[in-house]
Amino acid sequence: MVRKTLSTRRFIKPSYAYLIEKKRDGQEFTKDEIRYVIDSILDGDMPDYQMAAMAMAIFFQGMSAQETAILTEEMMLSGEVIDLSHIAKPKIDKYSTGGVGDKTSLVLVPLAVASGIVIPMMGSVDQDFAVSALDKLSAVPGFNPVMEIEPFIEQLERIGGAMVRQSEELAPADAKLYQLRKKTATIPSLPLITGSVLSKKLAEGAEGLVIDVKWGNGSFIRDLEQAKQLARSMTRVGRSMKRRCVALVTDMNQPLGDTVGTALELKEAIQLLKGEGPEDLQELVLKLGMEIVRLAGVAGSTLSAKQTVQRHIEDGTALNKLKEIIAAQGGDTSYIDEPDKFPTAQHIRKLPAPKRGYVHTINASQIAKGVHLLGAGADGKIDFAVGVSEIKKVGTQVKQGEPLMMIHYNDEAKLEQALEYFKAAYRLAPKRPTPPPLIVERVA
Amino acid sequence: MVRKTLSTRRFIKPSYAYLIEKKRDGQEFTKDEIRYVIDSILDGDMPDYQMAAMAMAIFFQGMSAQETAILTEEMMLSGEVIDLSHIAKPKIDKYSTGGVGDKTSLVLVPLAVASGIVIPMMGSVDQDFAVSALDKLSAVPGFNPVMEIEPFIEQLERIGGAMVRQSEELAPADAKLYQLRKKTATIPSLPLITGSVLSKKLAEGAEGLVIDVKWGNGSFIRDLEQAKQLARSMTRVGRSMKRRCVALVTDMNQPLGDTVGTALELKEAIQLLKGEGPEDLQELVLKLGMEIVRLAGVAGSTLSAKQTVQRHIEDGTALNKLKEIIAAQGGDTSYIDEPDKFPTAQHIRKLPAPKRGYVHTINASQIAKGVHLLGAGADGKIDFAVGVSEIKKVGTQVKQGEPLMMIHYNDEAKLEQALEYFKAAYRLAPKRPTPPPLIVERVA
Repeated sequence: MVRKTLSTRRFIKPSYAYLIEKKRDGQEFTKDEIRYVIDSILDGDMPDYQMAAMAMAIFFQGMSAQETAILTEEMMLSGEVIDLSHIAKPKIDKYSTGGVGDKTSLVLVPLAVASGIVIPMMGSVDQDFAVSALDKLSAVPGFNPVMEIEPFIEQLERIGGAMVRQSEELAPADAKLYQLRKKTATIPSLPLITGSVLSKKLAEGAEGLVIDVKWGNGSFIRDLEQAKQLARSMTRVGRSMKRRCVALVTDMNQPLGDTVGTALELKEAIQLLKGEGPEDLQELVLKLGMEIVRLAGVAGSTLSAKQTVQRHIEDGTALNKLKEIIAAQGGDTSYIDEPDKFPTAQHIRKLPAPKRGYVHTINASQIAKGVHLLGAGADGKIDFAVGVSEIKKVGTQVKQGEPLMMIHYNDEAKLEQALEYFKAAYRLAPKRPTPPPLIVERVA
Repeated sequence: MVRKTLSTRRFIKPSYAYLIEKKRDGQEFTKDEIRYVIDSILDGDMPDYQMAAMAMAIFFQGMSAQETAILTEEMMLSGEVIDLSHIAKPKIDKYSTGGVGDKTSLVLVPLAVASGIVIPMMGSVDQDFAVSALDKLSAVPGFNPVMEIEPFIEQLERIGGAMVRQSEELAPADAKLYQLRKKTATIPSLPLITGSVLSKKLAEGAEGLVIDVKWGNGSFIRDLEQAKQLARSMTRVGRSMKRRCVALVTDMNQPLGDTVGTALELKEAIQLLKGEGPEDLQELVLKLGMEIVRLAGVAGSTLSAKQTVQRHIEDGTALNKLKEIIAAQGGDTSYIDEPDKFPTAQHIRKLPAPKRGYVHTINASQIAKGVHLLGAGADGKIDFAVGVSEIKKVGTQVKQGEPLMMIHYNDEAKLEQALEYFKAAYRLAPKRPTPPPLIVERVA
């Protein structure tokens, strides 16, 4: 698509320094000014140092709801915007701010498809220590997460779902800004996060978006209040861009489920698609799934939404859809039928509890870093076999020497490094703690 | 001189992003961290975009007194530091934040020298619209403001004073940072201003510094409270670097004296050195001069300081010293003896008062911009003849049509442009306003 350019309209280009000063002094940008900045970023006209100063000024002064909405829209319009309007089915996307042990996308995408919903999911590759859904799917031999936009749309028409890597043709202005933000300590800005996420997500062609905003020691958002604000900011901007939006603020103060890794997590996702698996994940999948089917209009009431989700898990249609998607993207689905085929680690050892007591807190980021060190890294070659399983969750009572979790490893040297993180992640206490609520708030 | 390098000391280099984040979150830098940043700027290791984000974080979070002192010292040590300790006389420097019509340096330098003080003044070339002392001296044929450090020191030994352009060998880290700050709206930060000014000034070899912090519509500091804070910040840092420091916070809400231009201002400075000229300038020269001689220890009491200043003006020794300095730097001193030799404009016309009343306010920046447009610009070729004179000051009663000032110009087209600024600069009111106090505060 062709962008409207500024040159055809009455707008006198201000200097970048003036615009930085304006934001520095807490003033609001006009639509033309934001468009000019995004155009300038896209064209490479605005020098990096001025983008950096601008981002830091935005970090301190924020942006109004309107500015954030304009920023999001202009960044979205900086690239390709996928049009799925020719597909009659409801089109809903799901986004998570990212968490440790979060394998819900692997369950929710086929579940949505089984419910008659098109879910055009592109996964971010930028997750730092967290293992992405695409990393996990890469454990399936042959699975290809890289797809051009045309075949992506074709697969959505044919099957209803796809799980592919974020296309570089979507929101390229955001990509440039994001790279710079990482290096200039300007990531944690609510309007910039909102703009970055939604400019890409809303370019994927969905009419609605279910957002999982995670807060806690395993999320990049450590503060609950900030998570709530981000949930509000995102749903507000989504609505202003005529998309239906619901956000759940959920707990990320311990790993989700019992496993962290790639194949280990994929196996846990398959369990969930069979109606099995750990309670916290079952609940989160149910709640997010219900939001998806309600937003799609597939189910009207809460009860009907719950029944829809449960039915497609119980009758195996969701699991079948996962296989369809994997097959369509070249993956060997026999691994889904027989999860024992996934590679296993040469060694499995326990992390012993240093004393008796209750699991009081688990620093999920430390667990993620430990697993990263074992070789399940997001960068470079992934060892699909390594990770941790049977994680004892917050509130569990343990005896001294009892396993806090099982460590799957292939390399003694890497284990030594990782152990430091695993040990540091656990805090035991004599009294039973109150486990944090999994779902803190719903923002619609 | 050789810098101590970090490599010889125990300091684990943090990432620049970490340091930006630290300041963004309002934390205090250690001495090693500041030194590392300055080293990195100097070596070109720190990318511009990270410097820019850091500067903006400093703009918002500020710096402690200790951080500011360390920043200043490290920037000073990034280049040459002139050593004048072999000269027995007291060595005092003077600095002004810059103002419209400010020709006090042209008077104070020879006055200090006449009083037995060495004054190693290097002038900044970066004054935006204000005309610098060196621009004014350039009206003297032959005068050379560019000098290497060695001959600069020799002239100080021989005569006691010099007025030269800032050497690029002094505080090069500041020069880099300053260029970036101009383009990223991070100039108005008290710690960065303090560091920038003092790192250069204290490298000039003086033991003491008299600072004129100007506030008002003709200064880049529009807010009185900020001017006071800057005066305190500068004197505090100066003291922590073992220099005697006094700052006066003075009014810049109308042009200083009766003229703005180059030759016009130089002629006014010559008048002042003869004990003549406008009251406000005479007072400011007296007050700043008294601070200089007292800081130097030449005069003990206020009375004796006043007598010292007045004596060296009355007996003509100060004026003689100006000629000595100009002669030493190649200038034709006959112009000082016969100021009528300076070029005059082809046309002189009045700016008529649009109605009767009192001069209520004069926007000094507007006057400066107008004069700049007439051709007395800081950049490119200077037309020494143009400018304004006989400025009616705040509180003066005028009749309709009476001149608010006289405009000296050589080019009708330029006059038209400049007139807009001159007209906009004046506000007349029916009642006599209270003129603002010239000297607001003394910070020692």
